[in-house]
Amino acid sequence: MSTTESSAPRIAVIGGGQLARMMAQPAIALGVPLRLLAEAEGVSAAQVIPDHRVGDHRDLADLRAVTEGCSVVTFDHEHVPTEHLRALAADGVIAHPGPEALVHAQDKIVMREAMARLGAPQPRWAVVASAADVEAFGLPCVLKVSRGGYDGKGVWVVRTSDDATEALAAAEASGVRLLAEEFVDFRRELSALVARAPSGQAAAYPVVATLQVDGVCREVIAPAPDLAPELAASAQQLALRIAGELDVTGILAVELFEAVDAEGRVQVLVNELAMRPHNTGHWTQDGAVTSQFENHLRAALDLPLGSPEPRARWTVMVNILGGDNDHVGRLYDGYAHAFARDPHLRVHLYGKELRPGRKVGHVNVYGDDLDDCLERGRHAAAWFRGDLGNESE
Amino acid sequence: MSTTESSAPRIAVIGGGQLARMMAQPAIALGVPLRLLAEAEGVSAAQVIPDHRVGDHRDLADLRAVTEGCSVVTFDHEHVPTEHLRALAADGVIAHPGPEALVHAQDKIVMREAMARLGAPQPRWAVVASAADVEAFGLPCVLKVSRGGYDGKGVWVVRTSDDATEALAAAEASGVRLLAEEFVDFRRELSALVARAPSGQAAAYPVVATLQVDGVCREVIAPAPDLAPELAASAQQLALRIAGELDVTGILAVELFEAVDAEGRVQVLVNELAMRPHNTGHWTQDGAVTSQFENHLRAALDLPLGSPEPRARWTVMVNILGGDNDHVGRLYDGYAHAFARDPHLRVHLYGKELRPGRKVGHVNVYGDDLDDCLERGRHAAAWFRGDLGNESE
Repeated sequence: MSTTESSAPRIAVIGGGQLARMMAQPAIALGVPLRLLAEAEGVSAAQVIPDHRVGDHRDLADLRAVTEGCSVVTFDHEHVPTEHLRALAADGVIAHPGPEALVHAQDKIVMREAMARLGAPQPRWAVVASAADVEAFGLPCVLKVSRGGYDGKGVWVVRTSDDATEALAAAEASGVRLLAEEFVDFRRELSALVARAPSGQAAAYPVVATLQVDGVCREVIAPAPDLAPELAASAQQLALRIAGELDVTGILAVELFEAVDAEGRVQVLVNELAMRPHNTGHWTQDGAVTSQFENHLRAALDLPLGSPEPRARWTVMVNILGGDNDHVGRLYDGYAHAFARDPHLRVHLYGKELRPGRKVGHVNVYGDDLDDCLERGRHAAAWFRGDLGNESE
Repeated sequence: MSTTESSAPRIAVIGGGQLARMMAQPAIALGVPLRLLAEAEGVSAAQVIPDHRVGDHRDLADLRAVTEGCSVVTFDHEHVPTEHLRALAADGVIAHPGPEALVHAQDKIVMREAMARLGAPQPRWAVVASAADVEAFGLPCVLKVSRGGYDGKGVWVVRTSDDATEALAAAEASGVRLLAEEFVDFRRELSALVARAPSGQAAAYPVVATLQVDGVCREVIAPAPDLAPELAASAQQLALRIAGELDVTGILAVELFEAVDAEGRVQVLVNELAMRPHNTGHWTQDGAVTSQFENHLRAALDLPLGSPEPRARWTVMVNILGGDNDHVGRLYDGYAHAFARDPHLRVHLYGKELRPGRKVGHVNVYGDDLDDCLERGRHAAAWFRGDLGNESE
């Protein structure tokens, strides 16, 4: 008997951003059909996934409509309500990650409690509800809304108790709890990315160094330079243990601070968890045997995972972010120079308009010489952003 | 001023097969929208390109409808009539490759005449119209219809003049001319693949060895093992010269015989030309810095081409072909074993049903050890084809 594509399970993907868009590439290779729930017509992923519907990820009827005929559902973002995922599971549509895991990426207080239970190293933290709580916790500190923050939004660095006023008001206004975390004077940020399948099989990518500016990822270097092998291994093991203990399926990114403790020992502390393909894993598209997007789909389908090994000594990812108001941005028009200057450059654009601060694409550069990769990646990203003069005006 | 995706030219692609499907992957990364003319709903490329219409590539009205608003048009196959491409050019829609180039991939007699004009090495050939012509040409020989043959169809090996009867009848029935070619006792088949942009920039991929069975590509090894460097360079130069002289834009595949001449010298002879991404270039998806599909799009847009350098010492491509009637084929169901056995395996399925002789996908395997790559690639392809037992029944 012949088998056909129709024997491949259809995967529902909730959210039409660039992460869903980049899942479409390995889905084409795997012969696995995707069905997308998009926020609106024309959004990034809806441009490239034929089988899409427009709807609201907070609306159970929309979720039921888009997952009809799908055996599994996965996500471009972490905002689908837990109770809706439980309702879908009752219908036979299994979420990867599942609701019990996903809540740790949705709620920072739930995450901190889980890390404490697992004995995972993390900054000192407490739930706070008043200026007095914040003062009692100790200053300086970082305040975060437990739910709904992203890319630096919903995060405040607080040096005096007056600084806490805005955070306390924002939390009260949005009805979410507030979390205080010790201000970690970290040396740099790292990310440990793993894929985990429902079977329990997992694959750990090399630990990378990430440069964040104003809470937004700017650059990633894979692997993290000058990271002690035992610290790299312990970060991978930590990510694998978190994935296993929380029963994460799909990609888990564990964002880490690399810091020096009171005894002068270098250590890693858990900063954030993300349960979906992550900006700190975009380098894998051109720098690893199997991209995070393919392994996310393979995990969702409970297929054996692909190798997370790097294909080059160094891979550098630089985000293309919209510049400040006076900058001249260019995307498609940037190709003529960027490709002529660097025939090895790998560009990924998201089909988005260039606006200040918005992530609209990224470049990947790989090679044996890290400084060369950094120069090429930064030049290309700055060129697309419009930071290198106005030659194209 | 911000630029948006809408500033990226829209590319029309004629034909909904796997070549168009595999163009969709780099189009997503480049942020370049594709518009597809598909033979029918649900064909390979229509599954993955949202902006598609169903129509007939021989119908100018369908071609005009699908190319409306597109600045360039390119192809999944070589069957669009020349006069239609000239009409589209008059409308301002430029074909890559253009009609004057494409005719050399459409008509084998036109191609042979051009190769003669260029002094390109090729088998002795003649136009034949009768059994007497074939006998005068000399036996054994190969008869080919000048237009419309593919994958071994429209090709006859003729050892006695009686053998020519079927070919002569087929040519007469379809109203195409017939070409006789000397029967080349080749050592193996090679393919020299180049990309060429309208600017004149070109990029040559490493020359590969191809194994054909019954006129259908079965395996490709990149680079061709034990190929003398000067012969490899001369094959690349020949392909670059053909691309330049015929003004080919996009991918050109020059299929070659490696043969030994009367003086015992190894030489290459031009067998066929193809002007589109080609089966002998599928290895580039995982084995080269820039895939043939991306460079085809970049050439169509007259963007600087990406590097054609290999990323591994060896890359092996093995086609997944439908087996004979009694075989048990499996595609999606093959993943569990194939991926568990080989975490480095790269699989590309086309969303097609498995039928005898049909190309439904391919696997790529790369590494330092050619025998290991061959074993892994052949095992995986045989497994998907259903040739390794009936474990999944």
